[in-house]
Amino acid sequence: MTVAVRHALKIAYDGTKFSGSQRQPEVRTVDGECIFVLRKIGAIRDAKDSRYQSASRTDAGVSAAGNVIAFDSAMTNRALLGAFNSRARDVWAWRVASVPDDFNPRRAKQRWYRYHLPGRLDVERAGTAARLFEGRHDFRWFTRAKMDTIRILDSVQAIRRSDFICLDVKGQSFLWGMVRRIASCVESYCLGEITLDDIERALAGEKQDFGLAPPQPLVLVEVEHGIEFERMYSGKVEEEISSRLDVSRLDFARWSLIASALDIDETKFVARPPKHDND
Amino acid sequence: MTVAVRHALKIAYDGTKFSGSQRQPEVRTVDGECIFVLRKIGAIRDAKDSRYQSASRTDAGVSAAGNVIAFDSAMTNRALLGAFNSRARDVWAWRVASVPDDFNPRRAKQRWYRYHLPGRLDVERAGTAARLFEGRHDFRWFTRAKMDTIRILDSVQAIRRSDFICLDVKGQSFLWGMVRRIASCVESYCLGEITLDDIERALAGEKQDFGLAPPQPLVLVEVEHGIEFERMYSGKVEEEISSRLDVSRLDFARWSLIASALDIDETKFVARPPKHDND
Repeated sequence: MTVAVRHALKIAYDGTKFSGSQRQPEVRTVDGECIFVLRKIGAIRDAKDSRYQSASRTDAGVSAAGNVIAFDSAMTNRALLGAFNSRARDVWAWRVASVPDDFNPRRAKQRWYRYHLPGRLDVERAGTAARLFEGRHDFRWFTRAKMDTIRILDSVQAIRRSDFICLDVKGQSFLWGMVRRIASCVESYCLGEITLDDIERALAGEKQDFGLAPPQPLVLVEVEHGIEFERMYSGKVEEEISSRLDVSRLDFARWSLIASALDIDETKFVARPPKHDND
Repeated sequence: MTVAVRHALKIAYDGTKFSGSQRQPEVRTVDGECIFVLRKIGAIRDAKDSRYQSASRTDAGVSAAGNVIAFDSAMTNRALLGAFNSRARDVWAWRVASVPDDFNPRRAKQRWYRYHLPGRLDVERAGTAARLFEGRHDFRWFTRAKMDTIRILDSVQAIRRSDFICLDVKGQSFLWGMVRRIASCVESYCLGEITLDDIERALAGEKQDFGLAPPQPLVLVEVEHGIEFERMYSGKVEEEISSRLDVSRLDFARWSLIASALDIDETKFVARPPKHDND
């Protein structure tokens, strides 16, 4: 009998196709899909038995380039990656590692989230607000979590990437809704709706609600555990991601052309994140 | 009783949501949607009675910024546009005109199509091939139509627009599949698969099959009739188009980020149009 060893898979997924990452009955979730596929391919018997865990829980609509899942399996790395990708839909495993038996992906060294804010915002102004969040703070007004709301953010930066201002937020651990609340707050500051002082007072513990930005612009870029992942070539993954990229590029070009023919003034209609709490 | 007068509507549509423009039983088409909506809002009794016509037939997957439909209706311009847009899905009417009773939108002065070719092609080279199609030619090897294959193209140009080489083709009238066959031919030339001489021989009547490029990259930009259209403000149209544009821009940014995290070499996987005839 082959002995099960602990494996980690680095996965990317399209968050718009799932009702979040965490398993729930009756709805399609990222963990649900991964566990279904791992069972189908004979990599695990069930989630509990294999000690299935994922590094970061992401909300419905939030995508990932590099979340990490871990589980015990007797399959080899290469067989695992190939079989997983042949079955999985809207999730792609692109790196694999054999890890120590006590590896828990939730204990990460760093998580990196990117939030896509509208490109018409001032990047300098976004950066000024972003920097206030760096370091150790009490984030109680940036989450609905009630306990243990102290977190340390390693860096919070605003950079321009094509049509967006990207808010890159890096830290070891995050509270529920935290990045989307920081994003909403930074956008509000860029729009002149709030002051730097308002943000500082919230971080000092004074009650504030800056709203929750929508989930679709958020991507979990990377979770770092300080372990060596092995990259294995998977033609299907590269073809599928390339194809999604091609389709989305063309969609964007077509809508740009139609909007320009109709002479639509985009800036008038840019959606603002909801100001009220609904997470 | 109000007398029905002839109206023209300029419409944009998302071709990926329809099985082409021409009415067919059992499937969703652009004309089917327009006629359904015009009946629902009481603008027409039926297609025949109202002498419903559209300027250009487009294949499944082909979008439009400015196709034109015409029909007889007793409604006023303003009421027509508002009621149409409140009901229509994936089609937007954005200009309206009262036209002479004998107005037939098929008799256009000029049609302008844009085909989105991959941006990695050489724009100079694309332009060189494109220019061969300008003027009066026998396009029998650029269509499956069997008769009357002489057409005059006013201009065929290649321009770079963000991530694409856009092939802008303008002429009074077109044959079935003609723009997609010209696009496939220009791409083949850019890729060094055929020579300018091959294209010239096809235009001189010698049998050639350059293949049919896929429909999604094709947009009917504008049909010109030399009539004055009235632009009327429709908040719903602008909001819907802006929202589609926003969603597609974000999708593109998300897939770009994921592809870049996975270090996917895009150029390896760029889809080539099918080389065989399947229209």
